[in-house]
Amino acid sequence: MANNLQTALFDRGLIGFLRILLRGAGQVMFQGNAWTGLFFIVGIFWGAYMSDNLNVAWGALLGLMSSTATGYLLSLPEKDGHDGLWGFNGILVGCAFPTFMSNTFWMWIALIFCAAMTTWVRSALNNMMRTYKVNSFTFPFVLSTWIFLLAAHLMPALDLSNISAPELPSHITSGGYLYFHDLVQYILRGISQVFLIDSWVTGMLFLIGLALASSWAALWAIVGSALSIFTAAALGASAEHISHGLYSFSAVLTAIAIATVFYKPSLRSAIWALLGIIATVIVQAAMNVMMMPVGIVTLTAPFCITTWLFLMPLLKLDKEEPDHSDWHGKGSKSRVQKS
Amino acid sequence: MANNLQTALFDRGLIGFLRILLRGAGQVMFQGNAWTGLFFIVGIFWGAYMSDNLNVAWGALLGLMSSTATGYLLSLPEKDGHDGLWGFNGILVGCAFPTFMSNTFWMWIALIFCAAMTTWVRSALNNMMRTYKVNSFTFPFVLSTWIFLLAAHLMPALDLSNISAPELPSHITSGGYLYFHDLVQYILRGISQVFLIDSWVTGMLFLIGLALASSWAALWAIVGSALSIFTAAALGASAEHISHGLYSFSAVLTAIAIATVFYKPSLRSAIWALLGIIATVIVQAAMNVMMMPVGIVTLTAPFCITTWLFLMPLLKLDKEEPDHSDWHGKGSKSRVQKS
Amino acid sequence: MANNLQTALFDRGLIGFLRILLRGAGQVMFQGNAWTGLFFIVGIFWGAYMSDNLNVAWGALLGLMSSTATGYLLSLPEKDGHDGLWGFNGILVGCAFPTFMSNTFWMWIALIFCAAMTTWVRSALNNMMRTYKVNSFTFPFVLSTWIFLLAAHLMPALDLSNISAPELPSHITSGGYLYFHDLVQYILRGISQVFLIDSWVTGMLFLIGLALASSWAALWAIVGSALSIFTAAALGASAEHISHGLYSFSAVLTAIAIATVFYKPSLRSAIWALLGIIATVIVQAAMNVMMMPVGIVTLTAPFCITTWLFLMPLLKLDKEEPDHSDWHGKGSKSRVQKS
Repeated sequence: MANNLQTALFDRGLIGFLRILLRGAGQVMFQGNAWTGLFFIVGIFWGAYMSDNLNVAWGALLGLMSSTATGYLLSLPEKDGHDGLWGFNGILVGCAFPTFMSNTFWMWIALIFCAAMTTWVRSALNNMMRTYKVNSFTFPFVLSTWIFLLAAHLMPALDLSNISAPELPSHITSGGYLYFHDLVQYILRGISQVFLIDSWVTGMLFLIGLALASSWAALWAIVGSALSIFTAAALGASAEHISHGLYSFSAVLTAIAIATVFYKPSLRSAIWALLGIIATVIVQAAMNVMMMPVGIVTLTAPFCITTWLFLMPLLKLDKEEPDHSDWHGKGSKSRVQKS
Repeated sequence: MANNLQTALFDRGLIGFLRILLRGAGQVMFQGNAWTGLFFIVGIFWGAYMSDNLNVAWGALLGLMSSTATGYLLSLPEKDGHDGLWGFNGILVGCAFPTFMSNTFWMWIALIFCAAMTTWVRSALNNMMRTYKVNSFTFPFVLSTWIFLLAAHLMPALDLSNISAPELPSHITSGGYLYFHDLVQYILRGISQVFLIDSWVTGMLFLIGLALASSWAALWAIVGSALSIFTAAALGASAEHISHGLYSFSAVLTAIAIATVFYKPSLRSAIWALLGIIATVIVQAAMNVMMMPVGIVTLTAPFCITTWLFLMPLLKLDKEEPDHSDWHGKGSKSRVQKS
Repeated sequence: MANNLQTALFDRGLIGFLRILLRGAGQVMFQGNAWTGLFFIVGIFWGAYMSDNLNVAWGALLGLMSSTATGYLLSLPEKDGHDGLWGFNGILVGCAFPTFMSNTFWMWIALIFCAAMTTWVRSALNNMMRTYKVNSFTFPFVLSTWIFLLAAHLMPALDLSNISAPELPSHITSGGYLYFHDLVQYILRGISQVFLIDSWVTGMLFLIGLALASSWAALWAIVGSALSIFTAAALGASAEHISHGLYSFSAVLTAIAIATVFYKPSLRSAIWALLGIIATVIVQAAMNVMMMPVGIVTLTAPFCITTWLFLMPLLKLDKEEPDHSDWHGKGSKSRVQKS
């Protein structure tokens, strides 16, 4: 099995392997494009540096490598690996662990194990979900990371330094203010939070990366972030949370997925995506409440759940027969620039 | 897409459309019969009026229309719509929202959105569950409403006025008394709680409606309610909860489903239904405990879960090959009077 | 339907029926071997006697009989029954109820009902999971018992005497010491906890029983228990819990399942099993935290969930096409001695 990894490294050369890693970063937002991935990683480094926790960026690289290498070690179908589909769950694990846990030896071991695990959990879930013609999206990252975050409450070697203690949900008064002239910052932060980064500069870098692969995707990332802010504000959600993008990151992914990846951009798919964005905000709030008594966070689960609920009806919004179990191979419907 | 709705309205005329709406009400208890639906709606109005919250009844009508119209707008297969299968989740959403939330502008917007959502969530879940040869029942209502009730804890525009605050479950002493001569009232209230109404008169109206379509269904509604009361009482559950029908509404639906809809009435299916009723009561108590820390209610989930567990073994209790993925079309096995 | 049971009893004679029951006990650890089952039951009696709660052993026998008889009553495919696959969930229910609940009349009624229920819940879940080519394992026991334990919080007739009250999880300091010279005891207790027994003698008896059917299975039970102890200790989990086998019982089952039942023993499957054991420990801690606010225990759910995640990728680790939906019939891959 280890042969596969060696072959991959030597056949394609270091550059070829690097490109696969970068595509893995890009696939977090459905773009199998190495340049997109490069901008994403630069954005992560910037955000990690600014928040004085560079471990988030190193973790991202380590997670990306661990999950990608695992695909080769397990001899999974190489097509997936080549398109970066082994990497996107791992890089998110790598961002999450140093964000929520202290910098201990066992945190790094756990990060590598958890990132590797996402690769076979993805195989497991896709095998299951193919039956319903949908894909597991980032849920392998969500499920694997939830397991480790929950376990950390009972395992002091994984020190949860930066996550709220379990508590019962209570009616929260909205409080705080949203300033209209900061709206652009809120929108960009919402996009940067897809990788758990809270920085408008990073959001800008992510947008540039997206636009290199697909301008539709970049546009819908903005629409998703903006509409999620309005929806959350209208319903009176915490201004603090809204302004830091915590109601937006899942909505950004829902928007890209529905409007540009699984349906061709059109009036119909646009309306469907707008409804999906609104629903994602409600699901986000709902899951925030559900997670409180056990002291973990939703990660991108609201995106996964909402998008499943919008894709599984298999609505025929364009001329193709709906089958949403995959997005690479047939090429993203908005024609991603491959690189 | 909007064309479908217009065609439906004009082709069938207002009366035709009204009949579809009424069947939608009837399908909450598996009866695609407009007269049944009419009695159900009269029952809802009576109960809402008596509890001084007519918004529950207006909400029911609004939810029914929203979810039915959504089926046309999404161009879903018309057969389902014609049989009232787009309406029954929506009318339940419409009963639930004004029951648990204050009368605010956003509550009504959320009600319309959530009711509409049940229609495509139903498509999504049925697409998934067809693989196991079962149907999603009222779970689209349960899932969508749970999402909004949970979210409301963090969204003050949806004010949860009438739902217990989250708390840790604790061993509850039974307390209170059940009076034997009130048994008929308890049974009828258990039936009325299917629509979240707490009124024995409403229960009576529901029974009449049921009997118009199927006397077996009416009989089993009574059996389900009565046996659930005895089971809960024997196990020492709260007399307060029992007497207001809170252990019965799911059991009523389980009884009708197993004994009359998915199996033909017979000795075997009767025994199976009796076991199902008892199991539903245990699942009801279990889910009450599970929901406490997050401050929501079970809705009809105990019915859905128990009935899945009793139908998915695909036991052959009569001569037909068991496939429980649908109940209209082949006609309810106890021969519903269509109207 | 009752005919089936009578035929079974008379055709095979009492000895034949006893053998089926004993195989049911053995199948808890995947061994359809009556001698294995006999040693398991002796082990249960020893453990129950030593902890002064013989009801656990009587419950085990009662649960075993109830769930096995139910298979005949429901006319399920006899092949399963003959191999003991109707019994293993029931015997676990029978161990769990007297362990967690007081000795009341309704506890025994509930035990019989719950054990019977596992038989059709198994049919239901296997029908569903066959689609993904995996088996429900002990999850019918887990799900049915969870329902009753949760419900018991609201039903005083089922008195939860021996289970922690619901509480919010908090960061627990490890505390306590693990003594190296007690390691063998810890390992054996981990194996005995598969049946909720806390006794190293019982663990020894279980090992002998396992070895009679498959020495590979016995070996991997030891490896699973030992590695789970090291993993939990390295991550700083409570020494108290570790020493009583609470991090090991699920890992023991994962080890046997992956290394000997669903894959042939080999270097590849051994590595896969070792990873599975480590993952099971993390999932165990995670689920402990999840269950706290609702006051129930994980039972063997961590084994089920982890093993699904390791089997559902359908990795081809030996020459056979991976299909993990069943383990009897084709015979366990490590060639169980049948009896």
